[in-house]
Amino acid sequence: MSKVVFGIDIGGTTIKCGVFAEDGTLLQKSGIPTRKADNGGHILEDIRDHIIAVMEKEHISLSDVIGVGLGVPGSVTADGVVNKCVNLGWGVFNVAEAMAALLELPASSIRAGNDANMAALGEYWKGSGEQYDSLLLVTIGTGVGGGLIIDGKPVNGFHGAAAEIGHLPIVPDLQERCTCGKRGCLEQVASATGIVRVAHRMLAQEQEKMQENPEYVLPSGLRTEQIETAKDVFDLAKTGNGLANAAVEVVAMNLARGLACAAGIADPQCFIIGGGVSAAGDFLLERIRRYYTSMAFHPSRETPILQASLGNDAGMYGAAKLALHKD
Amino acid sequence: MSKVVFGIDIGGTTIKCGVFAEDGTLLQKSGIPTRKADNGGHILEDIRDHIIAVMEKEHISLSDVIGVGLGVPGSVTADGVVNKCVNLGWGVFNVAEAMAALLELPASSIRAGNDANMAALGEYWKGSGEQYDSLLLVTIGTGVGGGLIIDGKPVNGFHGAAAEIGHLPIVPDLQERCTCGKRGCLEQVASATGIVRVAHRMLAQEQEKMQENPEYVLPSGLRTEQIETAKDVFDLAKTGNGLANAAVEVVAMNLARGLACAAGIADPQCFIIGGGVSAAGDFLLERIRRYYTSMAFHPSRETPILQASLGNDAGMYGAAKLALHKD
Repeated sequence: MSKVVFGIDIGGTTIKCGVFAEDGTLLQKSGIPTRKADNGGHILEDIRDHIIAVMEKEHISLSDVIGVGLGVPGSVTADGVVNKCVNLGWGVFNVAEAMAALLELPASSIRAGNDANMAALGEYWKGSGEQYDSLLLVTIGTGVGGGLIIDGKPVNGFHGAAAEIGHLPIVPDLQERCTCGKRGCLEQVASATGIVRVAHRMLAQEQEKMQENPEYVLPSGLRTEQIETAKDVFDLAKTGNGLANAAVEVVAMNLARGLACAAGIADPQCFIIGGGVSAAGDFLLERIRRYYTSMAFHPSRETPILQASLGNDAGMYGAAKLALHKD
Repeated sequence: MSKVVFGIDIGGTTIKCGVFAEDGTLLQKSGIPTRKADNGGHILEDIRDHIIAVMEKEHISLSDVIGVGLGVPGSVTADGVVNKCVNLGWGVFNVAEAMAALLELPASSIRAGNDANMAALGEYWKGSGEQYDSLLLVTIGTGVGGGLIIDGKPVNGFHGAAAEIGHLPIVPDLQERCTCGKRGCLEQVASATGIVRVAHRMLAQEQEKMQENPEYVLPSGLRTEQIETAKDVFDLAKTGNGLANAAVEVVAMNLARGLACAAGIADPQCFIIGGGVSAAGDFLLERIRRYYTSMAFHPSRETPILQASLGNDAGMYGAAKLALHKD
């Protein structure tokens, strides 16, 4: 077999494992559950065992393995030291060196990076960002996170907190506290739960109006019970429901403000929207683009806003790229 | 004489010229007016003549000159191509190559960068950022601009618009249009003129209250005529004037929001506040720090916010550093 590189994306519930050719072709992918017992102390052994099983099955010898990239849910230094991955139970240790020892590979062939950065690097390498030198990936799921790539390299930030777009304090009139403890975070109105929150709040305001004025008709007969997920909001909006559409507008406006702030600080060549909510596609992206154009500083006004294309595989791609190109 | 490097900061009215030792010691500085006639076509010749005059006076031979760095008021590519410096009348051309030809030096010894980035690089090299690997410089003067340094290198942004913190759209309730054409820009409430605008607006609101209620006493008997410059606002605030203090609070809160957004995108190791308004010193910085702590995402909450230390020389320092280290 010709040379391969492994891209491993370590998530809180599943570890995804991709075998890539040097040109970035995904040859094989598989997954194992994340065993969090004993402070995640078995995770690296499980990955080792899985890699060896894949190698046997695919007839890959150790000398064919160029490297192994690891995406971890937490901050990692360039040398591979993780600084507490609370989701896994990990403390502070060099994950690259530990993985190298287990696989009997030189430490220089293992690279580790933050999972959000790896997803951004994956989209940069083989996804929607393939044509661009710099990008900001924004993932909209349970939370709003992201990864920043400049000149082909992930920007970690001094505290590992670069591209934490979900916690930009740009919704100052919010009263609820964010899970991070502060108020006014973008995530509160733009994550999957945030979108539901916006719709519920708007519905409550409508219901108040109805109580004040018995003749007021609730738009499209919407009820709170109908809105349980972000998908519900988008599905209702697509049927023309006025209130759901108004909620999508609020979400899009706030996301656009976040992108315009990112443009004013890092000015990437493109934005890529990923995560579960990005399934809404152009229905959401077109609205974000419209607000973005009016909010961004003029040199960055035309920056493309694209949908991510690698889905949940992005992190594997990015980890493989990191191990392949060593930076 | 031992080896030297020239740091040239080309401004709209003055060209500043610094002669630096290799260790960054400023040996001599001087300035000439910026001659904008004929679309700035004489500027490089004027710089050449001035450099030669300085070399003769200081007994510097051409073989002692390691390089010449140029800070220009506009965007520049890594290769030295300027893309219209409207302040100088320049179009699109390679300023590094043109300067090299005039000085009869190899093109590789000339480097050019954006003036705001050069100021940030100067503070990074020999100013308040000397101890840090990454920083965001925010200059508060007629406008609000800045420069971002990551791992010792300026981040230009794809459109040359990185670190344009003055145009972050984070003051959504503003009605006035910014000079850039859009609404809600930080600069509108944080530049020298923005600070005066905030104070005038608050005073107008107080005067309205007075008209509505004849018994209402205007705080400290303030009048619009007393507030002509940002310095007036700070001086009045320092005397304990309630309204001027309230205006400083609004300015500090908005600047802090801008810094918190920058932390959430680039997460620099420190922030440096420069420009004329930074003369207000800790009176302003302490307020910015207080708001910043409550707005920044927790990993970046302790990021130091420092006063710039090189003043108007920062750009010369940065240009010299760029020419010295070629990146």
